[in-house]
Amino acid sequence: MNFNKRIRNEFLKSKVMSARDASLFIKDGMTVASSGFTPSGYPKKVPLELAKRANAGEKIEISLITGASVGDELDGALSRAGVIKRRYPYQTQKDMRNNINSGSTFYADHHLSHVPQHIDYGYYGNIDIAIVEALCITEDGGIVPTTSVGISPQALKNADKIIVEINTSQPMALEGVHDIYMTEKPPKRKPIPIINPDDRIGKTYMECDLEKIVAIVESDIPDNVRPLGAIDENSKKISNHIIEFLKDEVKEGRLPENLLPLQSGVGSVANAVLGGLKESEFTNLTCYTEVIQDSMFDLIDAGKVKFASGTSFTPSEEGLKRLLENTEYYASHCILRPMEISNNPEVIRRLGIIAMNTAIEIDIYGNVNSTNIMGSRMMNGIGGSGDFTRNGYLTIFTTVSTAKNGDISSIVPMVSHVDHTEHDVHIVVTEQGLADLRGLSPRERSRKIIENCAHPSYKDLLFDYVDRAEKNAYKHTPHVIGEALAFHERFIKNGSMKK
Amino acid sequence: MNFNKRIRNEFLKSKVMSARDASLFIKDGMTVASSGFTPSGYPKKVPLELAKRANAGEKIEISLITGASVGDELDGALSRAGVIKRRYPYQTQKDMRNNINSGSTFYADHHLSHVPQHIDYGYYGNIDIAIVEALCITEDGGIVPTTSVGISPQALKNADKIIVEINTSQPMALEGVHDIYMTEKPPKRKPIPIINPDDRIGKTYMECDLEKIVAIVESDIPDNVRPLGAIDENSKKISNHIIEFLKDEVKEGRLPENLLPLQSGVGSVANAVLGGLKESEFTNLTCYTEVIQDSMFDLIDAGKVKFASGTSFTPSEEGLKRLLENTEYYASHCILRPMEISNNPEVIRRLGIIAMNTAIEIDIYGNVNSTNIMGSRMMNGIGGSGDFTRNGYLTIFTTVSTAKNGDISSIVPMVSHVDHTEHDVHIVVTEQGLADLRGLSPRERSRKIIENCAHPSYKDLLFDYVDRAEKNAYKHTPHVIGEALAFHERFIKNGSMKK
Repeated sequence: MNFNKRIRNEFLKSKVMSARDASLFIKDGMTVASSGFTPSGYPKKVPLELAKRANAGEKIEISLITGASVGDELDGALSRAGVIKRRYPYQTQKDMRNNINSGSTFYADHHLSHVPQHIDYGYYGNIDIAIVEALCITEDGGIVPTTSVGISPQALKNADKIIVEINTSQPMALEGVHDIYMTEKPPKRKPIPIINPDDRIGKTYMECDLEKIVAIVESDIPDNVRPLGAIDENSKKISNHIIEFLKDEVKEGRLPENLLPLQSGVGSVANAVLGGLKESEFTNLTCYTEVIQDSMFDLIDAGKVKFASGTSFTPSEEGLKRLLENTEYYASHCILRPMEISNNPEVIRRLGIIAMNTAIEIDIYGNVNSTNIMGSRMMNGIGGSGDFTRNGYLTIFTTVSTAKNGDISSIVPMVSHVDHTEHDVHIVVTEQGLADLRGLSPRERSRKIIENCAHPSYKDLLFDYVDRAEKNAYKHTPHVIGEALAFHERFIKNGSMKK
Repeated sequence: MNFNKRIRNEFLKSKVMSARDASLFIKDGMTVASSGFTPSGYPKKVPLELAKRANAGEKIEISLITGASVGDELDGALSRAGVIKRRYPYQTQKDMRNNINSGSTFYADHHLSHVPQHIDYGYYGNIDIAIVEALCITEDGGIVPTTSVGISPQALKNADKIIVEINTSQPMALEGVHDIYMTEKPPKRKPIPIINPDDRIGKTYMECDLEKIVAIVESDIPDNVRPLGAIDENSKKISNHIIEFLKDEVKEGRLPENLLPLQSGVGSVANAVLGGLKESEFTNLTCYTEVIQDSMFDLIDAGKVKFASGTSFTPSEEGLKRLLENTEYYASHCILRPMEISNNPEVIRRLGIIAMNTAIEIDIYGNVNSTNIMGSRMMNGIGGSGDFTRNGYLTIFTTVSTAKNGDISSIVPMVSHVDHTEHDVHIVVTEQGLADLRGLSPRERSRKIIENCAHPSYKDLLFDYVDRAEKNAYKHTPHVIGEALAFHERFIKNGSMKK
């Protein structure tokens, strides 16, 4: 459907302008909140114009708040142009990451469920501009999101000025897939009435003060999606360990036959696990998660998953083609919610989510590092992994047992950065095996993790550490404090954790 | 009221027996779940008999699950007798702590809000026996708790056999103060309908299968309460920093004039902060917390706090006298809930709690260690601090800037154990000052924490670390990984973090 027909509100038609003109509302020093969650549904035209201005020599530095990672037209173009001075709460784009690690961008990774309320509470200061990609604008001025929802409702609510990019490459059949529900600020907050993953509790569009809309821009740039991570042997092994474990949990009566709603991150291991579920006997599954990716489309196609709730569609190029060609079909099995709701502790705990996330490294006591390589180098961010891990029914962390051709062990005496504490991690899985940590004391965890999950080439080093640590006077969480980070020190000095 | 009158159910009168006989239901290898949260409302007579049996040479080793810490008759007597092989989820008793740190007791400290559902889910295995202190038993066999609720409802629900200690030293005026509401297991869980701290949503007693009650025992041993921590100069300074900060937040429009419901730990700093509120202009306050302590009685007396919700009364000796003499008065301003509800993420996030907890040490990036001294030595446990910190509206951690006469700095380059990650900590306060970390990147946090909160005698050392760390290639969370724990290493080797 063409651009003009997508603006059904008469008053707003007068706000149409070029992306260049719209970009002029964004000035040096402003805080901008945008749509987008994974490279889906983020604004593209206006950021590209903003980058042009900066590249032409204009001084523009902004704080950028998004739902999660976004595509190259936003994080990439603006990072290369030096526009992003401050960034929240998650990113995966190469140039953005380089700026963070070189120190030119101030970055704070926040739990995704916290971000919408931090905007509402004023913890990020005033929001000057919201830029939101939209499918269309309804007769009453409701803004219909595209392939993600993220923080858009809170961006619209709190921003002084709003810029809308209507993206004609997004299929109109997406209208109706969204379920927009917003919480009040305390002390007026009410229970969120979701009892099943497919419950609809809100509207199919986002409301905002129409007077705040200063520009409507036409866009036809498709989501800059990422290629599908290949499923390698190690991922398949990890997937098999998890499927076997879930079968046992059902047998032991700790999980219903159709499990409980699944949450899964993205990437090759996640794809393998969801792929494994497709081949398994499990059926009637549901998902309550952030991202609905290719492998979830597979599960829907196979009749294994009856319903998936998320805050974004995150397909590969091939998956995007599938989504565009079968939008109605997938929309009827899916719901996209604001990330305040998709990641809400209240709902996650109530539904009893099985949370599956990946780790950079895991220590022998069950603490997980998801973000900082060797303690300092930011990879992506904690994202929603904390929201699901802290509130899930069952929390699973996966990692391949070594990295860098064996020079890094993903199982270490002490992680160099903690994102998930020992209190929250139930199950650790590598291609070597699975360690069930529930109910275990730290000393029991250490031996089980090393035995079941560490790579054979690191077991002796790890057991040696534990043996010596347990000789100390204090044996609750035994450490040789001067050596706790020696694995990392060796890698930084010598290029290998082994020597 | 005498013992017999407290058993209003005719059928159960036949179950009365001596504590000695009741203790015989507890056998070697069993898992026992008991009432008790802080030294309040825990069983006393039966544990003492159990200890006697072990001291007389009988081999009895059990796993003990409580609400939180309990008094000497349970943790102390059984630890000294070597009975507790495994312990969840929190403790503060000297002998118990020694057994944990010497390695003779396996201990896992768990988020308190997780414990009731872990019992329900079977994550601690089968519960053989529940021992619950009760005020009385109703006509229908309902068990009325005493000065705490903790995990008692889940203990009664899941145990094979139940022993009830009716404690005649507990005042009958406590009947009616409890509000027992239980959640279902997923996927049948419903919203918890609490919208205000004083909402009553359940019954005043706990239900259980009467057939499971194997023994009812008379007890008259009062709660073995702890003396009140003195408020020293440092605590007063910390309190003043917090009160000033809260005033500012109200001025900035980020908090309502009567704040939001308060949660506070126990101890001298907590007492000082609550004492400071009593002297402040704040009024119409509410509390949604775990423990209702002396200083909260003061706030109620002063008309400052109109209502307090918790899972236990935790008075000092003097406070206990006050509570016993004015039970009806305090009961009318208070509610005691199961800890699944008092600590529930859903309710904490909905109400928008101001969470105030104490730290052992805090690092320059805002990570908090609440449990393990020098990384290995268990102090008490994480308790409910995580439940409130992860879900609160505003999360505050307090610590005096040095310990051991200045040989320990509570502000360190990297904490030796992480209980609360950088993502969850908003405000750090020492007697030196307050650091507001909201919205700051790690590098900004480090300088602010050192400048505002570190003791002057450690500032140079800390700034030197940061300066050198920031010279590294990766500047997101700058660390000199070989020196990150050098403060701790120096203390362990030389008795001081300084040299």
